[in-house]
Amino acid sequence: MDERLERYAELCVRVGANVQPGQELFIEALVEHAPLARALTRQGYRAGASYVHLLYLDEHTKHAMIELGPDEALTYTPGWRKAFVEEGEGNAFIATLGDPEPELMADLDGRRVGRAVMQEVNEIVLEQLRDSSVNWCAVGAPNEGWARQMFGEPDVGRLWELVAFCMRLDEPDPVAAWRRHSEHLEKRADALTGLRPDALRYRGPGTDLTVGLLPNSRWLGGSSETAGGITFVANMPTEEVFTAPDCRRADGAVRSTMPFVLRGRIVRGLELTLENGRIVDVDAETAGDVVRGQLETVENADRLGEVALVTGDSRVGRADTLFYSTLFDENATCHIAYGSGYPTSVEGTPGDGLNVANIHVDFMIGGPELEVDALLADGSAVPLIRDESWQLR
Amino acid sequence: MDERLERYAELCVRVGANVQPGQELFIEALVEHAPLARALTRQGYRAGASYVHLLYLDEHTKHAMIELGPDEALTYTPGWRKAFVEEGEGNAFIATLGDPEPELMADLDGRRVGRAVMQEVNEIVLEQLRDSSVNWCAVGAPNEGWARQMFGEPDVGRLWELVAFCMRLDEPDPVAAWRRHSEHLEKRADALTGLRPDALRYRGPGTDLTVGLLPNSRWLGGSSETAGGITFVANMPTEEVFTAPDCRRADGAVRSTMPFVLRGRIVRGLELTLENGRIVDVDAETAGDVVRGQLETVENADRLGEVALVTGDSRVGRADTLFYSTLFDENATCHIAYGSGYPTSVEGTPGDGLNVANIHVDFMIGGPELEVDALLADGSAVPLIRDESWQLR
Repeated sequence: MDERLERYAELCVRVGANVQPGQELFIEALVEHAPLARALTRQGYRAGASYVHLLYLDEHTKHAMIELGPDEALTYTPGWRKAFVEEGEGNAFIATLGDPEPELMADLDGRRVGRAVMQEVNEIVLEQLRDSSVNWCAVGAPNEGWARQMFGEPDVGRLWELVAFCMRLDEPDPVAAWRRHSEHLEKRADALTGLRPDALRYRGPGTDLTVGLLPNSRWLGGSSETAGGITFVANMPTEEVFTAPDCRRADGAVRSTMPFVLRGRIVRGLELTLENGRIVDVDAETAGDVVRGQLETVENADRLGEVALVTGDSRVGRADTLFYSTLFDENATCHIAYGSGYPTSVEGTPGDGLNVANIHVDFMIGGPELEVDALLADGSAVPLIRDESWQLR
Repeated sequence: MDERLERYAELCVRVGANVQPGQELFIEALVEHAPLARALTRQGYRAGASYVHLLYLDEHTKHAMIELGPDEALTYTPGWRKAFVEEGEGNAFIATLGDPEPELMADLDGRRVGRAVMQEVNEIVLEQLRDSSVNWCAVGAPNEGWARQMFGEPDVGRLWELVAFCMRLDEPDPVAAWRRHSEHLEKRADALTGLRPDALRYRGPGTDLTVGLLPNSRWLGGSSETAGGITFVANMPTEEVFTAPDCRRADGAVRSTMPFVLRGRIVRGLELTLENGRIVDVDAETAGDVVRGQLETVENADRLGEVALVTGDSRVGRADTLFYSTLFDENATCHIAYGSGYPTSVEGTPGDGLNVANIHVDFMIGGPELEVDALLADGSAVPLIRDESWQLR
C-alpha cells in the first residue's frame, strides 16, 4: 500500500506536474488527503524541489463559514491565500481531489453555498493559465469517504485499484504509457484543429445544443507546455480533447448524464437552456440552487468555457464506475463547462469570444445515445462521435 | 464527546483568545487536530468573528523537508506564511498544541532538526507581542498519538478527562472559575513585582543557578490585555507567574526535571551551564543535538528569556501526569526558557537586558527539592518556593 502510494505520488510529480530541479512545488489538498499530500511532498523533494509548500483545505470550516459567518465572509479572499497562489508563479503546482463528504453542504442554503467562491484566487489562477506560467496537475486522493460514496462502504482498497487502472499504474512502464497516450490524444486534437469546425452540435436525450467555435479555437489533449518549455499533464487521468467555444454562440438545451459533486452538493439531472451564449434557465433534480447561486454571483458564469470530447475506449470509461469526482467522471465521457475558458485553447490573443469568469464547472453530457457533429463553415456536418466511438479519421 | 468538544472550544474562544465581534480569528493547528480546529472555527463564528482563517501544519512534511530538502529550505520562510501571521495583526489568534508523534524526527540529524526554524515568522510574532496587538491563546488538542505517548495506548477519553480537569471544565461555571483563578495569579505576580528582586536563585539536584532580574522586570500571571484593551488568557491552562530576566546576568548550572518535546524529539536530562548570561555548555541524555542546533542557528537563543514560578496546588500538578506537552507540563512546576523574553514582561521601553531571539523554548526545572529564593538589592534572600509551596505572603 505505502509503496503504491509512493509510486503514485512519483508519477504525479514526475509526469503530471513534472517538477523541475530547483522549482518550488505548491500543493493544495484536503485534510483528508494527508497521506497523499505527504507522499507528494517527499517525491517533490526527491525530484529536486527547492521547497514544497502545502496548503490544507477543510470543507468543514467552509461549512461553518456558510452556516454561521456573515454574508461578506462568503466572497472574501484572505491576502495570504492570494499570496500562496501568486508565489506559485513560475513554479509547480499539484491539487489533490476526491471528496470525502460529497454532500457535506446539503443542510445549508444552496444559494449561499453557490456564492461562496474565492473569486480573487481564481482570477490569479486564470492569469497563470493565460501566461502558461505554472506546470500543474490535478490528481485523485483515494480516501474512505470517497470510497463510501462510490461503493456504499469505505473500501479504499477497491478505489485504489480503480484509480491505479485509470492512472496506468498497471503498465510495466507507466511513464512510457503516458507518453504514448498523450501522443494519441494530441493526434485527435490536431485533427480537430485542422478541421476547423464553425460549431459543434450535440443531440441526445434531453439535449439539442449547438455551440459556436472561434476561428482560432485550438483543440488540446494530452500534455501541455509552459511558456518556459516545461511539459506537463494538467489532469491525471486525462482522456479528453477539448477547446474553448465562442462564448457568444450557444443555443438549445443540454442535460447532464451523470451526477456531479459541486461544492458539497450532488447535482443530478441538470438541465440548462441557452440562448445567444447565455444560460437563461437552470433546472435540476437536486442542487439546482447551488448552480443558480454561482451564476448570480460570478460574472459570466452563465456562458460556456469548454467543450470536451471523450470516447468509450477511455480507461475511466472502461472502469465503468461512477466516481463522484469530476476529475475522473469527465474523463469517462463527453462534457462541457460553464464559466471560464482556458486561454491556451485559442491561438494568438484571446478576443471577446473567449469567456472570462472566475469559476469553471464541468459536467458530463455524454453517453451511448449522444451524437456529436462538427458543423463546418460550408454548412456541412461531419460526425465526430457516434455510440461513444471516434468517427473522425 | 462532541458536546464537550464544543464547550471546550467555546471556552478557548471566549475566555482564551476572547474573540471580539467583527474581529478575524486566525487558527494554527496540526492536521491531527482537525476536530478541534473545526470546533474552534464554529465557535469563532458564533462569537461574531467576521472571518476565521485556518492554517494546518504537518510535521510529516517538515520531516520530508529536513530529510530530503536542500540546506536553504531549513531556514526558508515562505511569503504567504509571513502574510498569514501579519494579517493576524489587530485580530485574534489560537494555536492548538499536542504532539501526535513526539519522536517523529528521531531518525534525522538533530542539528538539521534544530536549524529548521521559520525565524521570520517568529520575528513577526515577537513584534506583535511587543505591541500587544493580538489577543491570542494556546490550547491543547487531545488526539490518539498524544494519548499513546502519555499512556502507552491511544486512550483519548482518558486524556480528555485530564485536559478537562486542567481547564476547569468540571466547574459549574468555568468562565467564572477562570476569572477567580486569574485574579489569584495576578495577586501573586503583583506581590513579586512589588518585592522587586534583583535576582532569583534556584537550588536543587543538579541545579544551582542565579538569574539576574531587571529593575523594570514586571511579573505577570493569569490574563493579559491587548493595547486596545481586550483581556485574554494566552495559555490555557495557565498556572504560572513569570517575568523576563536580565539576559546578561545568569550564572551556574540548571538541570531539567521533566522530559520535554522539542521539534519531534524528546529531550531528557538537559543540563545547561551558564556564564554571564550565556549558555556555554549543553548536555543531555537525549536530543542535546537539537538544542545545540538551535543555539547555533538562532542569534541570542543562548540567553534566557523567561523565569516562571508554579506551585504544587496547580491543577496540572495535581493531575500528577507527565503530559509530554510543554503547554501542560510547564504549568505543573517551575520552568525557565532560553530564547526571547516577552516584551510585556518589562515596564516601559525594553532595554538591552531583555533578550531578543527568534525562538522561545521552555523547560521544567521544578520539583519537591527545588528551592527558589528572591535575592534583594540589599543582599537579603526571601524564600519564594519550598516543597512546591508558595512562601511569599
